[in-house]
Amino acid sequence: MSIQVAVNGYGTIGKRVADAVSLQPDMELIGVAKTRPNHEAELAVENGYPLYAAVEDRVHLFEAAGIDLAGTVEEMVSAAAVVVDACPSGIGAENRSLYEAHDTPALYQGGEDADLVDASFNARGNFEAATGADHVRVVSCNTTGLSRLLAPLQETYGVEKARITLVRRGGDPAQSGRGPINDILPNPIGLPSHHGPDVNTIFPDLDIDTLGLKVPATLMHTHSVNVTLESTPDAEAVRQLLDEQTRTFLVPEGSGIDGAGALKEFAMDRDRPRADIWENCIWAESVSMEGPDLYLFQAIHQESDVVPENVDAIRAVLGTADAEESIERTNETMGVGF
Amino acid sequence: MSIQVAVNGYGTIGKRVADAVSLQPDMELIGVAKTRPNHEAELAVENGYPLYAAVEDRVHLFEAAGIDLAGTVEEMVSAAAVVVDACPSGIGAENRSLYEAHDTPALYQGGEDADLVDASFNARGNFEAATGADHVRVVSCNTTGLSRLLAPLQETYGVEKARITLVRRGGDPAQSGRGPINDILPNPIGLPSHHGPDVNTIFPDLDIDTLGLKVPATLMHTHSVNVTLESTPDAEAVRQLLDEQTRTFLVPEGSGIDGAGALKEFAMDRDRPRADIWENCIWAESVSMEGPDLYLFQAIHQESDVVPENVDAIRAVLGTADAEESIERTNETMGVGF
Repeated sequence: MSIQVAVNGYGTIGKRVADAVSLQPDMELIGVAKTRPNHEAELAVENGYPLYAAVEDRVHLFEAAGIDLAGTVEEMVSAAAVVVDACPSGIGAENRSLYEAHDTPALYQGGEDADLVDASFNARGNFEAATGADHVRVVSCNTTGLSRLLAPLQETYGVEKARITLVRRGGDPAQSGRGPINDILPNPIGLPSHHGPDVNTIFPDLDIDTLGLKVPATLMHTHSVNVTLESTPDAEAVRQLLDEQTRTFLVPEGSGIDGAGALKEFAMDRDRPRADIWENCIWAESVSMEGPDLYLFQAIHQESDVVPENVDAIRAVLGTADAEESIERTNETMGVGF
Repeated sequence: MSIQVAVNGYGTIGKRVADAVSLQPDMELIGVAKTRPNHEAELAVENGYPLYAAVEDRVHLFEAAGIDLAGTVEEMVSAAAVVVDACPSGIGAENRSLYEAHDTPALYQGGEDADLVDASFNARGNFEAATGADHVRVVSCNTTGLSRLLAPLQETYGVEKARITLVRRGGDPAQSGRGPINDILPNPIGLPSHHGPDVNTIFPDLDIDTLGLKVPATLMHTHSVNVTLESTPDAEAVRQLLDEQTRTFLVPEGSGIDGAGALKEFAMDRDRPRADIWENCIWAESVSMEGPDLYLFQAIHQESDVVPENVDAIRAVLGTADAEESIERTNETMGVGF
């Protein structure tokens, strides 16, 4: 029998998770919930996804917009084996009592506090930590990207210390009201940024310091990575190790891919839905060793790299597959890997 | 008797250096040279600076534009005790034979190769290295900013290793044809960036790795700095040390200065010429220690931080003042220090 999955919130992450869940042979998408009858609500109907009103007293707005509802979010949650909460940061916390009332295990996104949940989750980093948990947080796009990178380095070479500067996009392409414009903002100015402590929710013992900046770009985040290893492999060995991972894309030298714009073009040319890039994009040429110090650049697509992680987290929570099985199934059905 | 100074090239750096030289009681600006009769050539005339044609066969263009010339660049170089070459990168190298022919010591800018010159120069870092040299390179804006930061750290605490990510502006405000737009480009993709080796022209034994990126901003560069120290001062001690330097500005916590835009506003409000910021702008709140690891953010004004360094390099080359005297005189006359 398929896992009955509900998605609460049908915005940037929710609509992508709903599509990915629909592709899984072991899952059934029983519905999505939305607060407002906007173009994304219409999309859910076009896709044939049962649409639920996330707020009961807004049902009349959907009726006024001519959008058919399947019911309210309570009915959806009650019918689901797992609910993926893809609401804006902070709303997930408000929804927790709803999921508890229906005894439905819930996945939250990385914008929620770590202490809202029983476990934070990254498929490559700590898959088993979610098994049997009622409340699980799929860590943010940046933490996901860092966890995927650090897991194989830690296992293979040992990590003495990681120091990462995150050059973050100011907003997503459709968030046209956000900034900065023509500036480079240390953000936060005080250190460390939240990313280091967030990585520690996946790898509690890892020594990591992170600094964040925001710049006038919308396409992807870029990480300037230093990891002091406990051994001194050559750069080519590290490149191979990272290439062997299933959610990394080693950007080939000489490909002409010089940044996020070219990466998105590459993804569109290969018919990726919404030009999504689920993989860490690591520039092969940048992978360098100076003594025990590894350096590299990676770009992270903030809108989509957590999507396969949400799919895996569903299986992890219910214990229906182990990490290797789940990651392989998710990758194959979604088409992860260039 | 005053030092007779000529400035060859009257663009971004040259016009600023000419103004700064004019302010020095021990110097006389005998002229500036320019290749084309544009708005900056008119500015030189408006300022009362004798204007020379940098290329002899373009004299007629100045005549056609109604701009009076004092002569050709050869005459200017011949009359000067020192020439400051502020021509675009690579042109300085072409000009070297001209300066040699007239036996005139020359200062070049950081865009020239280090092997063009006898010594690379930073006033705080290695003032004495320029004394008696015929060809001296004032290092680039970024290398100047790093040298000013690393000199006191090295002297006071010892530097085990420095790791710097330079988030660079794409172009100056008037360079509207440059990019990137809406992207974050690792630049160069291969490591290290040239900045680390360039810092080693000032501090040959310093262990430093640098990574560079370019972003859609024009106002200032921003450095994400990690320095592993040989001792473990507390952050407040480091803050004080950096505050005691004369070409640093510790951006006060709570000032509302969150980036380069606010810094430029701050400079304009204080009547800085061209809104120039000659100082390293170090966010006090960002100065942090994690064990022996120092972290901080600093912003560097690419158009102006080398200007006081050029003034000091003139005295260094001729041996007319020591580092302390020269830096103090330059700072006082220009108004360096907020």
